[in-house]
Amino acid sequence: MVTDIAAQVTNRTGIKVFPRDVLRVVGALGTTDNFWRVASLVRLPFNAVAEILNSLTEAGVVVVEAGSLRLSPAGHAWVEEARIEAPFVARCRSCGGRGLDLGPFQELLAWLHEIGRLRPAPIKEFDQGYVTPESTVARVALLAARGDLADKELLVLGDDDLVSLAAAFTRRPKRVVVLEVDPRLTRFIEEAARAYDLAVEVLEQDIRARWPEHLLRRFDTFLTDPPETLEGLDVFLGRGLASLKGPRCAGYFGLTFTECSLEKWQLLQRRLTGRFGVVITDIIADFNEYVNWDYLLDSVRKDLGFVQVPPAGNWYRSAMYRVEVVESVAGHTDSASDAELYVDREALVYTGRLV
Amino acid sequence: MVTDIAAQVTNRTGIKVFPRDVLRVVGALGTTDNFWRVASLVRLPFNAVAEILNSLTEAGVVVVEAGSLRLSPAGHAWVEEARIEAPFVARCRSCGGRGLDLGPFQELLAWLHEIGRLRPAPIKEFDQGYVTPESTVARVALLAARGDLADKELLVLGDDDLVSLAAAFTRRPKRVVVLEVDPRLTRFIEEAARAYDLAVEVLEQDIRARWPEHLLRRFDTFLTDPPETLEGLDVFLGRGLASLKGPRCAGYFGLTFTECSLEKWQLLQRRLTGRFGVVITDIIADFNEYVNWDYLLDSVRKDLGFVQVPPAGNWYRSAMYRVEVVESVAGHTDSASDAELYVDREALVYTGRLV
Repeated sequence: MVTDIAAQVTNRTGIKVFPRDVLRVVGALGTTDNFWRVASLVRLPFNAVAEILNSLTEAGVVVVEAGSLRLSPAGHAWVEEARIEAPFVARCRSCGGRGLDLGPFQELLAWLHEIGRLRPAPIKEFDQGYVTPESTVARVALLAARGDLADKELLVLGDDDLVSLAAAFTRRPKRVVVLEVDPRLTRFIEEAARAYDLAVEVLEQDIRARWPEHLLRRFDTFLTDPPETLEGLDVFLGRGLASLKGPRCAGYFGLTFTECSLEKWQLLQRRLTGRFGVVITDIIADFNEYVNWDYLLDSVRKDLGFVQVPPAGNWYRSAMYRVEVVESVAGHTDSASDAELYVDREALVYTGRLV
Repeated sequence: MVTDIAAQVTNRTGIKVFPRDVLRVVGALGTTDNFWRVASLVRLPFNAVAEILNSLTEAGVVVVEAGSLRLSPAGHAWVEEARIEAPFVARCRSCGGRGLDLGPFQELLAWLHEIGRLRPAPIKEFDQGYVTPESTVARVALLAARGDLADKELLVLGDDDLVSLAAAFTRRPKRVVVLEVDPRLTRFIEEAARAYDLAVEVLEQDIRARWPEHLLRRFDTFLTDPPETLEGLDVFLGRGLASLKGPRCAGYFGLTFTECSLEKWQLLQRRLTGRFGVVITDIIADFNEYVNWDYLLDSVRKDLGFVQVPPAGNWYRSAMYRVEVVESVAGHTDSASDAELYVDREALVYTGRLV
């Protein structure tokens, strides 16, 4: 049955799904009845999780009641017999699994909580959805720990997460430049920077435009939280890399399993270590935790009852990548005005056709 | 000066060194006077660190006194003026930076401490040097967290670290097989397994022999702590990967900066994501902490006084890689009897000529 379901889901979604993926989903039902919590546990694209559960429902293994998922008696018997394990969460409670001591950054954390109350809400147009203040502080701590913060020139590409403000708040960087397309955010960042006397240069600009000369090879460190189509990754990371000065400069970005399959992870890793000329020094699982955003249920498929339920707590997470330039770096500076940044088969907002 | 030193060190060591590497080493002297502690902080091969410090001594920036390193007055002035930063260690104190809660594994940890008192000492012949019991337990916790332990068939390639015993102690794996060349270790593992009624199958075998049919495509998870020449990595990881059943099976291994340059990291990452067919899902910095081993000073270069001093505490660490099979996996099964597993220019034991 598991093999059939995997084949069926592959067929329906265009995402390669294997029997072990089906077992992971079944295992996750041992710990939660909430679809979004399952999606958060299984390291699979959203649509694969949804279709696996749909198929399990059709097969009588899973029952849906008022949007909640549970195993049927037959499902329970199968889990027992096949010894399917629930996922084991072993995250350190002190650091949330990031491995970083945020002790030296308590003032920054309190400040982010404070200014966060006034920040603009995420909107679908720019694929927004911001991380918790703890995640933003952890990024700054990671930069500091890797020697990429103090006396360095930082470039932030898209800054829904207010990393530019957080980095500047430490007074350690030599320069912080942020490029952001949403005028609500550029205004917010500029006003906060002015109010707290922080040196942040804000450029209101669409990243798809031809990359300007004045940003080329000028920075020590870039940060971004890219959209996860291959084109989106290419544009955001290619811009970031083109902006670095050279060897030993570093880039930071988040990558999910929820909108990025293992296949796409692999393609990206080949591109990073090949054409782009960097090495991956860190991949820290579940580093970035996103605050639930209002437009979620409105933007995802409506045909499955168990999907149209509110998430039980924050569920969307991404791994933190750090890449470092080895000898020389290649980027992506051409105009990319036709690039599809947001929608592919693995995107949350994908509803059956590619635009 | 920094550019000259980088060029000189590149020339002397055959390892590509950049100005920023020199600055990292100078920065590290802000926190320690011990060579091994510097080496532990700077993410560079041992020989690059040694030669950078040697050049800094020649340049009058660093002074050596009774094996201790310190900045000269001129060096201090330069650090001040150029604002060279000391490394910032932000490791979570609860989990040692691994991000894992070892709470559920306290019994295992106590047991490893107990049996560890009787274990054979590391010997140079097999490039041995084992990790702390906490590191071994953390590996088991990571396997559990990723779904690679319970009801799975595990293969351990070389087991100086007693991971096979630790995994079996949890009673969760379906099968644990360990391949080890050192008869002292195979005997120790067999005796401990017998004494504590643990199911561990021990094969005393040289990994370079043609890979036997009975290990091919038989396992869900492999673990190894490979030697770090490219050939060594190829043989150990290639054997491990050839032993995996297929999609979603996983491999775990440690990789240092101390014996493996960023260039070699990049080459390996290309090979993993290319020819080997896996994706890298985790790279956790400083995950494995090694207990200082007796033969260290005897095996490294004798010409530099600051190298011939005992390390100030455990200093040798490796990052933990987890790789996962995407669609199909390729390994390395041919005989590799001529492979140079241990010595290249980046090895600790390299003293000027390749054998």
